[in-house]
Amino acid sequence: MQHPISGGQLIGFSESRAGQSHFTSHNPDTGKPNPWTFLEATREEADQAMALAAAAAAPYASLSGAQRAVFLEAIASGLESGADQVVPLYTAESGLPEGRARGELGRTVGQLRSFAALAREGSWVAARLEPALPDRQPMPRPDLRKCLVPLGPVVVFGASNFPLAFSTAGGDTASALAAGCPVVVKGHPLHPATGEWVARVMLQAARESEMPEGVFSHLQGSTHALGEQLVMHPATAAVGFTGSRAGGLALARLAENREVPIPVFAEMGSINPVLLLPPALEEGSAWPAAYAQSVTLGTGQFCTNPGLLLGLEGPALDRFRRELAQAMSALPNSCMLDAGIAARYRQIREALLGQPGVEEIEGPAAPEEVNRVPATVAAVSGRDFLGNPGLQEEAFGPFTLVVGCADASELEKVIAALEGQLTGSVLGDTEAFRTYRPAIEALQAKVGRLLFNGVPTGVEVCPSMHHGGPFPATTDSRYTSVGTDAILRWARPVSFQNAPAEFLPPALRDENPLGIWRMVNGKQTRESLSS
Amino acid sequence: MQHPISGGQLIGFSESRAGQSHFTSHNPDTGKPNPWTFLEATREEADQAMALAAAAAAPYASLSGAQRAVFLEAIASGLESGADQVVPLYTAESGLPEGRARGELGRTVGQLRSFAALAREGSWVAARLEPALPDRQPMPRPDLRKCLVPLGPVVVFGASNFPLAFSTAGGDTASALAAGCPVVVKGHPLHPATGEWVARVMLQAARESEMPEGVFSHLQGSTHALGEQLVMHPATAAVGFTGSRAGGLALARLAENREVPIPVFAEMGSINPVLLLPPALEEGSAWPAAYAQSVTLGTGQFCTNPGLLLGLEGPALDRFRRELAQAMSALPNSCMLDAGIAARYRQIREALLGQPGVEEIEGPAAPEEVNRVPATVAAVSGRDFLGNPGLQEEAFGPFTLVVGCADASELEKVIAALEGQLTGSVLGDTEAFRTYRPAIEALQAKVGRLLFNGVPTGVEVCPSMHHGGPFPATTDSRYTSVGTDAILRWARPVSFQNAPAEFLPPALRDENPLGIWRMVNGKQTRESLSS
Repeated sequence: MQHPISGGQLIGFSESRAGQSHFTSHNPDTGKPNPWTFLEATREEADQAMALAAAAAAPYASLSGAQRAVFLEAIASGLESGADQVVPLYTAESGLPEGRARGELGRTVGQLRSFAALAREGSWVAARLEPALPDRQPMPRPDLRKCLVPLGPVVVFGASNFPLAFSTAGGDTASALAAGCPVVVKGHPLHPATGEWVARVMLQAARESEMPEGVFSHLQGSTHALGEQLVMHPATAAVGFTGSRAGGLALARLAENREVPIPVFAEMGSINPVLLLPPALEEGSAWPAAYAQSVTLGTGQFCTNPGLLLGLEGPALDRFRRELAQAMSALPNSCMLDAGIAARYRQIREALLGQPGVEEIEGPAAPEEVNRVPATVAAVSGRDFLGNPGLQEEAFGPFTLVVGCADASELEKVIAALEGQLTGSVLGDTEAFRTYRPAIEALQAKVGRLLFNGVPTGVEVCPSMHHGGPFPATTDSRYTSVGTDAILRWARPVSFQNAPAEFLPPALRDENPLGIWRMVNGKQTRESLSS
Repeated sequence: MQHPISGGQLIGFSESRAGQSHFTSHNPDTGKPNPWTFLEATREEADQAMALAAAAAAPYASLSGAQRAVFLEAIASGLESGADQVVPLYTAESGLPEGRARGELGRTVGQLRSFAALAREGSWVAARLEPALPDRQPMPRPDLRKCLVPLGPVVVFGASNFPLAFSTAGGDTASALAAGCPVVVKGHPLHPATGEWVARVMLQAARESEMPEGVFSHLQGSTHALGEQLVMHPATAAVGFTGSRAGGLALARLAENREVPIPVFAEMGSINPVLLLPPALEEGSAWPAAYAQSVTLGTGQFCTNPGLLLGLEGPALDRFRRELAQAMSALPNSCMLDAGIAARYRQIREALLGQPGVEEIEGPAAPEEVNRVPATVAAVSGRDFLGNPGLQEEAFGPFTLVVGCADASELEKVIAALEGQLTGSVLGDTEAFRTYRPAIEALQAKVGRLLFNGVPTGVEVCPSMHHGGPFPATTDSRYTSVGTDAILRWARPVSFQNAPAEFLPPALRDENPLGIWRMVNGKQTRESLSS
């Protein structure tokens, strides 16, 4: 089915065109405007979307996991079968290559199917049952049962750097819908056509799978006002965001100051430190080439981009830096997502290179084409790094700072001084890992994912992924935004005491009609309660 | 072993007496000061306690669950064998009867043992494993494994109304220690002797079970300054609090504004609405007597005290109100915990009784003994209640407001207008439950525990208990402060990618050395990984 790009708001099952202001996206590769025009959502349209979401919350929550799975799978199939429609929109709005577009579409489809499978299987609700013990002394024990229930309407912000996998039908949306929460997406203004197309696929899927109207709405806006209104709306129960630290903190602060505060799950990026142990620095090491790829992947515009490399100063580190810079120079120069992001990169890059003791390593000349920026390796001593917390600022783009430490003790101090991070990587061999165990343990305390002999870019979508980390990498280190556990952000436990069976969620009924894993009297089991 | 009450701070394994200011507790039953004097902790002492906790964090986190269990069980045994020492301290400081003291001690011991069992069993760390798939297309899958790790030092605030079960060695402390986090307790100034005695038992247990110094410290203070300092301390990773809304919100606000924000799990009480369906109001109903007991239990000083009863106006509700007030009048008049709490109760009671349309139901005369307050049943119409959000204020004490609604529709409106609550109760029979299903579903959306045909006071300690609820009942509806899931407040997930076995927590190693339940490739199993 061909989906039009009309530029309106998709509110419930209708299109709305009440706005007066317009905006367009640009093709980053050329700097030229794209052929579509989008209306800014009005306050009334945002209220309508939230009111429909609020009305849909109870009926949608009461659907079975299997019914929600049908909806999610229909979205996945719609995206998959429309790949040839969306890929040109994606590339025209992101400047990213077709291979990336198709890969990200595949990941998005995979995420939707994995949340569908999770919802259908059903054990994620963490059911616990303690049947009554009427004869217990000194007091009878009542019948107590508990499981997770959906929080209510969720607002999701599209992310500039993942038009598919972290935006309209991305991981936040898929996990919230799987949990039983209606979703209102505030599309990212850098890819409104991609967003609208995906939203149309989702609404077709919602209609075909007979979801309540309001289970999903899609609003467009290029200013802060729309997002702020959605976060402050009384019907909003939680927020998912992936983006800049300034943006995430602003939304979190708004949400804390609501009459009823709500959680904002903001993933705010990080500089993803990498510990270069001596074996990784040996002559002929493959790591400079691998990290040149990782630092420049997607023009460096990944939350997991390795922006900080830590090693012991000396000829080996010196060679590593040079080889890394050379390898980066040899790679083709791709465009940034947007002129504003490119300008911000240049500004932070200049600021970092201007700090005391920071030197650029034989970088390539600054490219002159539109939205291109210089990929950069910089160097600084451990001592200068320790004295200057500003060197931890993320340059969102193809930039990495190599810190040369005087000795292992300074290396540990540098790690101890780091802010919270999404990932930390260690390159070396087993013997080196043992020698530097204290540094590795210090790194573990700072990160959400610790990886050995690899690159941090490339986030596997699976139950054991934790894409999160201590503040300021995210607003809440206890939750992930990638992998099936992302569903836990959108639910809360409710205990039922002495409830008649018909007032219990099916997950908690004696006969275990869903066949899920439950904890009964403290033991994991899939059995029904013996009568 | 006899433990002295010396009035100092217990910091690591030493006593410190640096302070200059003193305070005492009072016996609420007589209003007279108790015979002990306590030093206010100084800023330097608080810093010392936090520094020791920070130093203990890594060694304590690296202990096995079984080792932590030994510590928790030693505390439990120490409390149990010292019951005859602590009970007189408890009653002298709380004014609560000996039976309550012994019951609460038993609950506290039971909590410690249940967290010990949880730590020893070990599956709570939610291990997930996805072994590498080197041949996967288009890209190999790395080895990914994830489990929960302790957050770091936890600050626990003692609670006025539970000198044992929610204070020094209470549920917050027991769950944080079980999770692997050192704990610094700020004792509640209404029961400093009870707190010190318990802290001495804990430190003896820590020494005997060879825990690292700093795993536990106990600080005394009667002002806000100490608590604020502890919440703002850079080493503090999370906070547990049970108390007033004003106190909880103030701490949460402080924590949000730290350079690195931390979670404050504040349980701030609620008015615990009860839905009185027609069968509960029939002549001869046992509910007025049961609720008279529940409203006045512990002189009404429970977070789960039923402070709001909702029914349909008419002769049956009228009879219920009178029978409830008569039954409450007939009960012995017990003291409040403290003159300040009693004064605050009187003030809010007067304010509530002075609101438009609020009437007191034939209450007993105000008692004249020290720290006694009038137990009160008040009545108001649904219409007046809906027009006056101030009527939802909690009168912490033996007070309940009966709202008489004109019809089922007004009843649903009243429920929809309620703030978040710890509990909601429904009294009736199956037929009534069916008739009022929309009201019950609306109530479920507001509460953390929904109970049928019971009283909300009496919180069972078990895996299926959720003692929490939507804001403002707590700061985070996703976590409980009672029951084994309370441990989840003090941990965060970390993913390990391609980690050598010796750098994995034992919970994640191939051979499953702890024999715990794990999710391997999405399936629950206790098997080791097949090689």
